[in-house]
Parts: sequence; structure tokens; C-alpha cells
Amino acid sequence: MNTIQKLADFFSRFPGIGPRQSKRFVYFLLSKDKNFLKEISDLILKLKDDIKMCCFCYRYFPGQKEGAEKCEVCVNTQRDKSVLMIVEKDTDFENIEKNGVYKGLYFILGGVIPVLEKKPENKIRAKELVKRIEKDVKENGLKEIIFATSLSAEGENTRDFLNDLLKPIAEKNKIKISTLGRGLSTGTELEYIDLETIKNALKNRI
Amino acid sequence: MNTIQKLADFFSRFPGIGPRQSKRFVYFLLSKDKNFLKEISDLILKLKDDIKMCCFCYRYFPGQKEGAEKCEVCVNTQRDKSVLMIVEKDTDFENIEKNGVYKGLYFILGGVIPVLEKKPENKIRAKELVKRIEKDVKENGLKEIIFATSLSAEGENTRDFLNDLLKPIAEKNKIKISTLGRGLSTGTELEYIDLETIKNALKNRI
Amino acid sequence: MNTIQKLADFFSRFPGIGPRQSKRFVYFLLSKDKNFLKEISDLILKLKDDIKMCCFCYRYFPGQKEGAEKCEVCVNTQRDKSVLMIVEKDTDFENIEKNGVYKGLYFILGGVIPVLEKKPENKIRAKELVKRIEKDVKENGLKEIIFATSLSAEGENTRDFLNDLLKPIAEKNKIKISTLGRGLSTGTELEYIDLETIKNALKNRI
Amino acid sequence: MNTIQKLADFFSRFPGIGPRQSKRFVYFLLSKDKNFLKEISDLILKLKDDIKMCCFCYRYFPGQKEGAEKCEVCVNTQRDKSVLMIVEKDTDFENIEKNGVYKGLYFILGGVIPVLEKKPENKIRAKELVKRIEKDVKENGLKEIIFATSLSAEGENTRDFLNDLLKPIAEKNKIKISTLGRGLSTGTELEYIDLETIKNALKNRI
Repeated sequence: MNTIQKLADFFSRFPGIGPRQSKRFVYFLLSKDKNFLKEISDLILKLKDDIKMCCFCYRYFPGQKEGAEKCEVCVNTQRDKSVLMIVEKDTDFENIEKNGVYKGLYFILGGVIPVLEKKPENKIRAKELVKRIEKDVKENGLKEIIFATSLSAEGENTRDFLNDLLKPIAEKNKIKISTLGRGLSTGTELEYIDLETIKNALKNRI
Repeated sequence: MNTIQKLADFFSRFPGIGPRQSKRFVYFLLSKDKNFLKEISDLILKLKDDIKMCCFCYRYFPGQKEGAEKCEVCVNTQRDKSVLMIVEKDTDFENIEKNGVYKGLYFILGGVIPVLEKKPENKIRAKELVKRIEKDVKENGLKEIIFATSLSAEGENTRDFLNDLLKPIAEKNKIKISTLGRGLSTGTELEYIDLETIKNALKNRI
Repeated sequence: MNTIQKLADFFSRFPGIGPRQSKRFVYFLLSKDKNFLKEISDLILKLKDDIKMCCFCYRYFPGQKEGAEKCEVCVNTQRDKSVLMIVEKDTDFENIEKNGVYKGLYFILGGVIPVLEKKPENKIRAKELVKRIEKDVKENGLKEIIFATSLSAEGENTRDFLNDLLKPIAEKNKIKISTLGRGLSTGTELEYIDLETIKNALKNRI
Repeated sequence: MNTIQKLADFFSRFPGIGPRQSKRFVYFLLSKDKNFLKEISDLILKLKDDIKMCCFCYRYFPGQKEGAEKCEVCVNTQRDKSVLMIVEKDTDFENIEKNGVYKGLYFILGGVIPVLEKKPENKIRAKELVKRIEKDVKENGLKEIIFATSLSAEGENTRDFLNDLLKPIAEKNKIKISTLGRGLSTGTELEYIDLETIKNALKNRI
């Protein structure tokens, strides 16, 4: 297998990329000069040296030492340390943060738990989450945990798991557990609304 | 203009139908026998004789006399007469009713109010709604009005108008005014959530 | 079943219309005044009185007597009577005619022949076509028959059937049988071209 | 700007990739182990060392020395050296070759000429093409040149330029110039066919 094919194979494993587009990526790179290729190659090579996982919220950020540093959100003294939002992945964090309406801290699960999964605790950062909350209780006066999982079968399953996992520590420490509100979202049409959404919209009316 | 073109012109005014599909409708009808054409022609002709507007909720239903009868939902003694849901149109009513989770009564506005509309009261059944509520207060012990308008600029504008319109009568009679809950709906992804939805989801967390 | 549902059922048999849109059609009609309904009802009712099938090309046109009249294209003395294009349906005729580049006459098959069909002659106007060509030979000096069927399995199957059907009469009368050219069409990209199209494009290069 | 953003910026320049997907690519890479990153980084870095441009058809292939070697198609003695197909880009070549119906040789233009371009000869490998054809005339008994440009404004403009460029040498050496056939392609429907395609289909009927 030649280098065009080998590289195309790698690209075809990227999220959302099929065999045809992966080939076009390779020809695109071939059309660029060596500097372009060196730059992107260097960035990929040193990605894991430049980017570390935050030891507190577990998101990727530009850090120095693995597991030893907090990201800029976690060290920001302006953030409300009494609220913790639990999200599935880095891009969820990025989008919520970009909208700028949430002022508390975060925890990135790094995955979801499929329905009927036998070892759910291996699919997400369960142990790390418990440790984080224990620390938050002691040091940050944690008052509320917000579940921000997606409204899908996997997301709901993950939420159920988190609820069972965190209920004891929450009750013991009088921490409120909440979930992002449910109901009509931008673009929902009453004419096409599904059972689950109309149920939630009725139950959670404002 | 010949009959093919004339009929196609009518069909092209149907919701969602362009000039090409309207032509295909005509050729479809031409391919059917005269009985088929007579049946559909008769149904259209007597549509307004067979279908009346309910004098209570203003939805279309199989009735006898214009403005003199209540539909089967409005006369159903099993329904909770103390709750009134206000929806924009008949298809919204149909879809909510099909899902079977709402047990109260309805009112169909028959439209929405565009933003900056100068005569908003002409765009929806405003007077009819006020009369209905006055009646509900006297006869049905109305306790709650639910706004079920869509989450769009027009829908929100309609809701604002309704709120101003109904607040006095609601306060005077201790009727609660609510709106369908807002937040994540089936299919919302945190990664792509918009500002308005994340705001609502945070505010209305459960 | 009430009139709303009955009429929606009819509309749901229209090409490309599902149960939801058919309901919206009915509510659209209910929102119109009685005149609108009467007009459309009348047009449908008398559609088959106003529109006849041309006795020569078998397309629908505004005519008086069933099977006794020719349409305006067939009677147009400016058209080239020596060329006959065979198309599947009225909308194909309309689109080709709209583009204005073809100057000959037409025959509408009124259908296509599915692959493996046992009675192919019943699926299209086969007998009528043979009669038409016999007449064209005698009266119009027919020199060429153009197959303008679609490039699909059914279309190709129809073309094969027509070829077998018309070959004897064509050979006997020295009529050329041709098919619309095949190859790249507007929008075809070489990067995504399929086997059949590249084969045709190579074979029929210009 | 941190490494996540820098790398995402590079990915967003890939064909068809927007800012959101480019971010997802970076997080995908972060989720992989260092070996995966090293492999893909190495493949990109040495892409231009492993892959050379064929000195004869100018396509990218696994070669040793820049501009000094022919690819496996150009050296294949089974190919018909008397026919030369001129395509726009490597992926066009790949797709035609994959379909396996063309047995001649190729030349990759490496681009197209925009309409009204002032220096058309700089947009494609014009000089290289002329040299190639001169060589083909002397050594390979070239008999036909096939233009396989796309059926778009740019593609047609490129074909016109090529025609003017190659006509003298073709006429002098009695080389036929042809273009891929035009007409119905797989999926074309007569009902929706555009003017250009129906024109071509009529003109090039078979």
C-alpha cells in the first residue's frame, strides 16, 4: 500500500470522513508546499506535548504537565465554584462556554454509557468525577451539580448512572442535583413535536 | 389559460407546492377515472358544509351549524375544564391531542402575530379568546391558561400580546398563566445548542 | 370517518404527498372562502370534460371530443412531421417542449415497462404507437423515430421493448431508429462519474 | 493561539471542512495515543518524499525522483499509446481508471481555467501538455486526444483553451481531437432535463 493510500486510510478514520473525501485530503496536501506539510505534521506530532488534560475538569487545554495543572476556566477566580456542570465531551464544553451564560465550573465525562453496558464505570470518568466532587465539597463549597447530558437513549442512561453514583454524596453534603431544563427548544414546532418533548414541556411549564 | 394550467395554478397555492408538483397533481387527476374526480370534487365542494368551526375552541370539526356547536373535545366531560391551552393552529391541536398527554381544553388562535404588526388583534382570534375565558371563569372554574405558541419570533410576539391581553382578567380571577417549558428537546445536541436554548435550559433546570 | 379525514385520504394519494401534508391541504382549504372551494371543485369536476387526450400523440390538451381531435402541436404545420419522439409521460413532453429545441412530433407512451413485466404491451400504449407509425409512414413521410425514455432500468427495458416492437416496420419502411445521446450531462463530475456514464461518454465521444 | 486552535485552522483549510468539523478532528486526534499521532504526522511529513509527480502524465504516484520517472500507467506496455485523455485532476483520473473501461494514456492538467482568466496558461499545465504531445507524436504514434473536462463554465472554458492550443499540432500531425460524449447520464430525468443537456442529447443521438 502506498503513502497516498496509507494516509487516506488514516483520514478516513477521522469523524465524518469517507474514503472519497480522505483521498481528496491527500491530494490537497500534495498540492501544498513542503512548509505547509511540515507545519501541520509538527502540530500533530507535538499535539499531546502542547495540550494536556486539565487535572480538575479533564478537558484538553494548552498545558505543561500531564495531570498536574488546571485549565484557565478552573483557575478563574471569577467563576462560581459552588456549581458544577457535567458534560459529555470537550465540544459540548466549548459550545456552552462560547454562549457565555453559564458562570460555574465543569467536568468532562469523556464519553457516554450505552444502554445495557455491562461496565458503565469504564465508559466515562466515573472515579475521577467522584474524587472531584469530594474535593469540591471540601474546598469549594459545592452546592449544585447540573447534569448536561444529551437527550438521547445513551445520554439518559448516562444521567441515570450519574444520579445513582452521586446521590449518596449529594444527600450527605446537601448538594442539589439538577438537570438542564427540557421542553421546547429553538425551532421546535408544535405541529411536529414528539411525545417526549410535549410531555416535558407540559411538566416543566414556566 | 386552459383547465390544466388553471387547476395547476390553484394547486400551486397549496402549502409547500411549487409549479412543477402542481402540474404533476393535474396529470395525476387526469390519469384517474371520472368517479375519483367526482368524489374529490364533491368533498371539496361540501367541505364547508360538513365541517364547522367549534363555537368554543374554534377548531374545525364535523358539525352541523356554524358557530352553534361544540366539538367532541369541548363537550367531553372527562376533560379537565380548569386548564386551557392556547395553540396557533388546528394541526398543532391535532398533534398535541394525538400524543394524548394533555387532558385540559383548547383554544385555536387561527394565526400568529408578525413582529411590528400594527393591528395584532386582527391577526388572531383575540376577542373570541377573551369571551371564551370570561365564560370559562364563570362556568368552568378556570385555573390555568397555558400558552403553547411556537418558539419563533412570531410565536414569542404572539405570546407577549396574549400576556398583555389576558393579564388583567387572569389577575382579577386568580388564574395562573403559564407557558410550555423550554430547554432541551429530543434531538438537541449540547455541541450545537443555541444561546436561547442553553439559556432556557439553565434557567428552567429540573 | 369525517370529511376532513376523507379529503386528506384523497390528497395523500397525490404524488409525493404524505399524511401530514394532506391534512395541511385540508386545513388550507378550510381557511379559504366558499368561492375558492367552488372554483377548484368545478375545475376538478370538469377536468375530463375540458381536457381530452390527443388522438395522435396521446397527450392531454384542451379539446372537445374524446379521441377525435389533434392537439396544437400535432396540427402545427411548422413542425417536422418526418421525426417522431417517443416519451414516457406528459411532463416529459412539457419539459422538452418548453426548452424549444426539438421541432418534430411526439408520442406519449403513458407509462414504462417494469423489468420482468409479463404483459409489457399493457403497460404502455403499444398498439396505439404501431398504428400511429403506420399512419405516419403513409401520410407524413416518417424518417426517424427517437426513443426518449429515461436512463433507468425501467426506461431501458421500455426502450428494448419498443425496439423489438418497431424494428420490423422501421426496416421495411427505411425509418431510422435513434435514441437520445448519452454521456456527460450538465452537472456530471468526472470525479464521481459512474461506469455506465463514462462508458457512454467514451463510446459516444464527439 | 494555542495548538488546538492552530491545528483546527489548518484542518479548516482542507476541502469541505468547516470550523466545527476541524475542531472535532483535533479532539479526535487528542483521543488517540501518541503512536497514532506519530504515524499520521510521519506520513504527512514524508508525503512529498514518497509521492512524486509522474514526468509523463503529471499525476501523483509512489516514485523516487522528482520529474524523472513515469508512473505505472505510463510504463504499462498494455495501454494504448495512440490515445491521450486530458483530465482536470488526480481524482478524475482515479475514478475513470477505477471504472476500467478506458485503455489509453492520460494527462493531468492540475487545474481549470476560470472564465475571463487573463493568464490561462498559468492555471493549467499548458506547456507541459504541448511537450507531452510532441513527444507522443514522435514516439507513440498519437492518433487521438480526448478532452475529459467537466461540463461546467470553467470546464468548457478550459476545453476551448485546449482546443485553440492543440489544434495546430493536431492538424499538422493528423491527430483527431474529441470530447467525451454528452447527453443523458445515469439519473437524468426527461421531466427535469435542462436546455443544454436536451440540446446535446438531440444533437448526439445514437
